[in-house]
Amino acid sequence: MKLIYTGKTKNVYLLEDGNYLLKFKDDMTGENGVFDPGSNTVGLTVEGAGRAGLRLTKMFFEILKDKGIPTHYIDADIDAATMTVKPAKLFGNGLEVICRYRAVGSFLRRYGKYVEEGQPLDAFVEVTLKDDARQDPPITEDALDMLGILSHDEYKVLKELTRKIAGIVKEELAKKGMELYDIKFEFGRIGEDNQIVLIDEISGGNMRAFKDGKQVEPLELEKLMLE
Amino acid sequence: MKLIYTGKTKNVYLLEDGNYLLKFKDDMTGENGVFDPGSNTVGLTVEGAGRAGLRLTKMFFEILKDKGIPTHYIDADIDAATMTVKPAKLFGNGLEVICRYRAVGSFLRRYGKYVEEGQPLDAFVEVTLKDDARQDPPITEDALDMLGILSHDEYKVLKELTRKIAGIVKEELAKKGMELYDIKFEFGRIGEDNQIVLIDEISGGNMRAFKDGKQVEPLELEKLMLE
Repeated sequence: MKLIYTGKTKNVYLLEDGNYLLKFKDDMTGENGVFDPGSNTVGLTVEGAGRAGLRLTKMFFEILKDKGIPTHYIDADIDAATMTVKPAKLFGNGLEVICRYRAVGSFLRRYGKYVEEGQPLDAFVEVTLKDDARQDPPITEDALDMLGILSHDEYKVLKELTRKIAGIVKEELAKKGMELYDIKFEFGRIGEDNQIVLIDEISGGNMRAFKDGKQVEPLELEKLMLE
Repeated sequence: MKLIYTGKTKNVYLLEDGNYLLKFKDDMTGENGVFDPGSNTVGLTVEGAGRAGLRLTKMFFEILKDKGIPTHYIDADIDAATMTVKPAKLFGNGLEVICRYRAVGSFLRRYGKYVEEGQPLDAFVEVTLKDDARQDPPITEDALDMLGILSHDEYKVLKELTRKIAGIVKEELAKKGMELYDIKFEFGRIGEDNQIVLIDEISGGNMRAFKDGKQVEPLELEKLMLE
């Protein structure tokens, strides 16, 4: 088993059978000890954060499997904090696909002239490039196509999958009295037919959720969801 | 005649007949005396810059008129450095629509992971919000529609007009041995049927052009075009 990628919140290993092993870390994105799903730096480390994120990811990936929504998920070992997944090819050097139900975060920073903080948005989908050095710039469907990252047809699939999966997460959170404000996903192409599937994780670290008017921290979110 | 808007490179007056008068200034966008069409600050002031920009604008708006492409242009008084135009309603608080033939400027800063400096782009169109405080953020067709700034149908018209007008400018510049790298336009809605038309100006200050491997400054560009 060979380490092939060291990420901010997880490492990726290549297994002998060609699948990948994701090792979830206890690091979370943010700054100065404060969690921020939109941040590009590790802001805090909390014991047990990796396992809790993996448990929630496992739960969601199994729900998606039941609903026939394709992901890279094979299985998970909670004690080891690892998840086995199918090999997927990234779009370019990786995209983040965001689904927004309320105007917060980078959306509000960009379009604050036109929206109030927390204003409802209708499952709005946008894509950013994973590029720390350039602060994950937003990119249009036309630019993705022109730069050879994603075709227009693939964009349609990505957008539809994003809305479907975000809707499922939103519904599950609502069952526990939480409101999903926004969530970010990663997608990849799997197999010879380049099927577009959800990859990476669905943990508290990927989303902003509120309960009783206050933002729910990732570990608290995972606790509420898994209890 | 009433001053209704003070811009970086021109002022806008309301005339008694309901039309507007644009007064071109000698100020150019840029920083520390260096011209940059993408800048949000006045970087330099050059005597005669306003009149030269107006002369080129008049030339292009008259070419567009001959070709049946709608603009807000009525007439121009070069000596007074003023242009009379029809009243147009902005999209939101104003958009900039950019057409790119080469990867430079903010496009390169955002997508430098995927493009080389100066790489050819196929008349790529993108839209940014006019919002100095937020550094004119780029915005997608979906966001423009969701925020009520521009419908999907209007976006199609805007994109087609942008490519058509940029193509005409590119061709005119080529006749004088210059290559157009990028150009930005503003559009508005005119009349009861909200026809989408080109507004503002087409001067050296709106574009990047190169000749013999060197960028052509606005005044030099205008001199080459008008001689």
